[in-house]
Amino acid sequence: MNELYLEDFIVGQRFLSETHRIDADQIKVFAQRFDPQPFHLDEVAAQASFFHGLAASGWHTASITMSLMVKGGMPIAGGLIGAGGELQWPKPVRPGDVLQVESEVLEIKPSRSKPERGMVTVKSVTRNQNGEDVQILTSRMLVWKRPS
Amino acid sequence: MNELYLEDFIVGQRFLSETHRIDADQIKVFAQRFDPQPFHLDEVAAQASFFHGLAASGWHTASITMSLMVKGGMPIAGGLIGAGGELQWPKPVRPGDVLQVESEVLEIKPSRSKPERGMVTVKSVTRNQNGEDVQILTSRMLVWKRPS
Repeated sequence: MNELYLEDFIVGQRFLSETHRIDADQIKVFAQRFDPQPFHLDEVAAQASFFHGLAASGWHTASITMSLMVKGGMPIAGGLIGAGGELQWPKPVRPGDVLQVESEVLEIKPSRSKPERGMVTVKSVTRNQNGEDVQILTSRMLVWKRPS
Repeated sequence: MNELYLEDFIVGQRFLSETHRIDADQIKVFAQRFDPQPFHLDEVAAQASFFHGLAASGWHTASITMSLMVKGGMPIAGGLIGAGGELQWPKPVRPGDVLQVESEVLEIKPSRSKPERGMVTVKSVTRNQNGEDVQILTSRMLVWKRPS
């Protein structure tokens, strides 16, 4: 895979990740550690909750999204370093869902004070196997200029 | 702990979580699964990186923040269900850091279409043992009205 420097990005450019299949065990293991709430831990309790069934923690979805971006979904030279972003979870992630991330470059800004770098704003949409959006992340990523 | 309904929230209300100490092992275990990049996995590689030393994935910080909020840091009746939010990571999280989350209610909006619920906008600042902000999260949380 070609790793990309700031000069290689153009607005509108798109990247598609590999896929990840999530199951009930993954959902519960993540939730036990980071989001121990009944609707992420137990099928029966989840059925009676807002989610009407077991659902992944949004932070789990965000973390899987990151893993898909790191493993080829967003080939930034030197790695993926985010300064922050905006997150939406329009739909729950369910056991058996197969997630894939499509990222689109929204903006490219060379740094004024640091000539060797810039920021790229990226919209990354995580979809399930039915093409439904389960997460929309707009993030600002640090990107290096090509070393001369 | 008293669990709070929509009527119990007021703008400016603050909540303080327990603390969580992060170590190098936790950082690497999370990174292996969700953010396998050298600066989250290996002290020597991290030293030569942008971070100048091992740093936690921002998604790890976000997940620890969620766990601290769930374990008493934000006592919403029926659980913490977020629709999304905005994230910033102003400073890296390092091995040995002790994290704590302070949340402040910014806005309270009863739903127009669904009389039994509303949305509460919460700013949750995660700080290290030196009082430095390592994450600033503004999230929109679903909150139920008190059952009559």
